[in-house]
Amino acid sequence: MDNDWLFTQTEKDIQVSEMTIRRLPRYFRYLRELVEQGRIRISSAELSKMMNVTASQIRSDLNQLGDFGHMGYGYDVNYLFKRISEILGVREGMTAVIIDSGDLGRALVQTTLFVRRGIDVLALFDGIGDRAGTAINDIPIISLSKLETFCETHKVDIAVLTCPKEQAQVISQRAADCGVRGIWNYTGRELHPEGHPQIIIENVHLGDSLMILDYKLRTQDKRNGSEKANV
Amino acid sequence: MDNDWLFTQTEKDIQVSEMTIRRLPRYFRYLRELVEQGRIRISSAELSKMMNVTASQIRSDLNQLGDFGHMGYGYDVNYLFKRISEILGVREGMTAVIIDSGDLGRALVQTTLFVRRGIDVLALFDGIGDRAGTAINDIPIISLSKLETFCETHKVDIAVLTCPKEQAQVISQRAADCGVRGIWNYTGRELHPEGHPQIIIENVHLGDSLMILDYKLRTQDKRNGSEKANV
Repeated sequence: MDNDWLFTQTEKDIQVSEMTIRRLPRYFRYLRELVEQGRIRISSAELSKMMNVTASQIRSDLNQLGDFGHMGYGYDVNYLFKRISEILGVREGMTAVIIDSGDLGRALVQTTLFVRRGIDVLALFDGIGDRAGTAINDIPIISLSKLETFCETHKVDIAVLTCPKEQAQVISQRAADCGVRGIWNYTGRELHPEGHPQIIIENVHLGDSLMILDYKLRTQDKRNGSEKANV
Repeated sequence: MDNDWLFTQTEKDIQVSEMTIRRLPRYFRYLRELVEQGRIRISSAELSKMMNVTASQIRSDLNQLGDFGHMGYGYDVNYLFKRISEILGVREGMTAVIIDSGDLGRALVQTTLFVRRGIDVLALFDGIGDRAGTAINDIPIISLSKLETFCETHKVDIAVLTCPKEQAQVISQRAADCGVRGIWNYTGRELHPEGHPQIIIENVHLGDSLMILDYKLRTQDKRNGSEKANV
């Protein structure tokens, strides 16, 4: 199992593991808050407490990104934030389409998620057909039957899949055949478009965090129950 | 840092770490697929390959749940799935309300996420006011001004917060004051309702996985660029 190390940053010849990459957006959010508060330095112990991650995990993650803190002095907050922003950095010119234009698709297009990443949402595609011709936030809704024609005349990097899971395989295959390079997958289905081994798929499983919340509530119930039983 | 160990399962007196709990829904999904395929046994090596997690991580996670596999024989798929289902298990009677009834709230209520967990969504609350009195999937939309009155006559375990982030603090405080025990937080804001140290908050940061997708696409670009440069 060596595919824990997937990514190579060529500039500084460093390797960042998949699991560390997955944690970077969280570091990004906490550090942004510290920068806004005007903090200059932070120890791995304090960051550990804030983020509820062990200090050794933090040191191991940040060591992969370069040489930051000096023993006993803590991390330079601004420099660390800048470095993580660079790695996760925004590059203009990335484009996306959303398939389809149901409530979830419409909800996503109205967030600032794409704008903040410099990703330009070109269109929503409508599978049902009665929404095509309208627009949301000036982004046109187009009939799904026109996906291929659209992709011939527009460079589309990312397809955001919010369609029903029954359609997930067929639509992801069509998107990949159209030259889409990445899929942000909300369908709950594992996707394997044939003939496109390079395609990058990022799955969002909303149910996972509901399971965790539900589990924690039930565990709390049990604890409270057993405390009562012990009285 | 000892709060890595948060949860105690009283039945068998086992402890499951926070990070393992966070991975259980993924095990659940992969094992469900294996059960559906009729698989009887699976080695940690094969599970590792499927899930892209190290085999030692898998053994460490599963060891916390009890005594499963026998060295060299692999794990009993059905038994493991049953055990994880039990731990994450559905218990009838949990209730939720969604605040507010914008696109994201409406999208969530139309998924099977709650039904699959046995969670009964009682109502959507509408902050703007012009949707109150209508319903989605037979779930009533009620004016947000009536949240307190509603909670006096209904037991509400979970508040799903899909409101704009500017309202997140105020609404989470109101929900907590109403006796809500858990918040599924889509607002992107860290929430700390005062006077409710026991409240459980599960944050969903949709932007995190978009950052990761974006990062992977840009890394692929760079790799392809440097390959070309090496030709």
